Amino acid sequence: MTESAQLAPESLDSRPTDRPRHRMLENDRASQALGIEVLTADPGHARISMEIREDMTNGFDIAHGGMLFALADTCFAMACNHPSLDEGTITVASGVDINFLKPALLGETITAEATEVASTGRSGVYDVRITRGDDLLGVFRGRSRTIASPGKK
Amino acid sequence: MTESAQLAPESLDSRPTDRPRHRMLENDRASQALGIEVLTADPGHARISMEIREDMTNGFDIAHGGMLFALADTCFAMACNHPSLDEGTITVASGVDINFLKPALLGETITAEATEVASTGRSGVYDVRITRGDDLLGVFRGRSRTIASPGKK
Amino acid sequence: MTESAQLAPESLDSRPTDRPRHRMLENDRASQALGIEVLTADPGHARISMEIREDMTNGFDIAHGGMLFALADTCFAMACNHPSLDEGTITVASGVDINFLKPALLGETITAEATEVASTGRSGVYDVRITRGDDLLGVFRGRSRTIASPGKK
Amino acid sequence: MTESAQLAPESLDSRPTDRPRHRMLENDRASQALGIEVLTADPGHARISMEIREDMTNGFDIAHGGMLFALADTCFAMACNHPSLDEGTITVASGVDINFLKPALLGETITAEATEVASTGRSGVYDVRITRGDDLLGVFRGRSRTIASPGKK
Repeated sequence: MTESAQLAPESLDSRPTDRPRHRMLENDRASQALGIEVLTADPGHARISMEIREDMTNGFDIAHGGMLFALADTCFAMACNHPSLDEGTITVASGVDINFLKPALLGETITAEATEVASTGRSGVYDVRITRGDDLLGVFRGRSRTIASPGKK
Repeated sequence: MTESAQLAPESLDSRPTDRPRHRMLENDRASQALGIEVLTADPGHARISMEIREDMTNGFDIAHGGMLFALADTCFAMACNHPSLDEGTITVASGVDINFLKPALLGETITAEATEVASTGRSGVYDVRITRGDDLLGVFRGRSRTIASPGKK
Repeated sequence: MTESAQLAPESLDSRPTDRPRHRMLENDRASQALGIEVLTADPGHARISMEIREDMTNGFDIAHGGMLFALADTCFAMACNHPSLDEGTITVASGVDINFLKPALLGETITAEATEVASTGRSGVYDVRITRGDDLLGVFRGRSRTIASPGKK
Repeated sequence: MTESAQLAPESLDSRPTDRPRHRMLENDRASQALGIEVLTADPGHARISMEIREDMTNGFDIAHGGMLFALADTCFAMACNHPSLDEGTITVASGVDINFLKPALLGETITAEATEVASTGRSGVYDVRITRGDDLLGVFRGRSRTIASPGKK
């Protein structure tokens, strides 16, 4: 895949129209470049998937930890920033603890599912499970902060 | 940059020959695709940098957390897997705690520096600082496990 | 301070005989000193409670974070070391990520519940929820390592 | 158990008068009950020590993880809440990642040293090292939030 294709806005047009859309992903070039597909997008909950491409593997021929993290982090951001929520704020990750349990291999499709654990004031905690079928590959616990929207163009 | 260029083995040939080389990065297609450059590579210590490209930004026009994580994770892996170390083992991340302090913006060059904190038996802890000049953008604490080499082709 | 008073074995005799007993807690003087009570103890799962005493509060008149941690850590250790498991090994905490969500106050009884999330080889991940009634006060994610038993007296 | 014995205010009178005092510890009954001694207390930095008593050991005859955590957490709180700082706010732990590297044994004196890593707005990150002489027993990374003082009596 040429990178320009990954990033061209028109590439979004080819996405199945019956898939959920999400304000985050529409403008998220990194997630688009990773080929992330949205399966479910609700306030406080999201499920997305990604296929491990060759340019996502590391020197040990398994998925680079950064790519598993990026999938989970995108899922976390989607659960925190559902389009139905307040447009005047955005919710960002202040930190994450992740445990890698099993590797993902080239060509495999992996899924991340984010669920809100707790929310108090402007802080939240979300759990994301990274799976391949029934196998649990990793667990990600994200800490969120809600801040004023930076007033994007 | 076209992605095919990022991934072509020959793209490595254009790297300055006075830069450190590292067995990890030679075969790490994800790190190559991210355009990561090695500044220092010693056993237990590494320093690398990366420029934030448009395909690394998220829906808020800042670097995707997964891309900052991927930079730090690569640096961590390099500090754990110096070519001078035992070829019969590899050291992988079992988990990470990361705190995001300040965002990185499109076009900025950011640096990660990994240092060994502790090593007992097959387990280790490494700290990685993500910086932009004097600004500390994030702190990453990686947990490593040393395992038998998967006997790569 | 009369430390012997804290440790008097006879203080255990007053525990209800219909409560579960656990090899961990029988010899765990710290948990005994904290007045921890076992509610459920199964392999991979445990539930315990503790009342916040005055000597568990900090300078802000709320439960010291170390006391919430100690409750959760004890629960984690019990879930990892059920008496039915291999006597030749013990499972210890290699690390923990904890988020404090709401404070616990003097006189309140709080509960911790530990559940195994994943177990691969000698490593495991356990989640512990700290609650007061329906309120979630904290979430604790423990990382375990199983090692040879130190051959205790 | 004679809890009043643990808490007797007069037990504080025996502390060396040439030791630093700290507003946190004056009212921190949990830290007093643990016998914590202050070695250094500056804004953003603190160093304290504690002897492992029998009532701090677990079922494996080593210091209970909760006791190591409590020492580090107290040190973290002292570095965040120096008496010279704004009296109208307090800084509390929102979360912690801790790695246990080596055990502490009965009778040993262990030290914690907290250093500010970063501070942005009302959030901060602090590193605490737990040592026994030159041995590093654990590393603790605390996340702080500064909030309005609860207006204590």
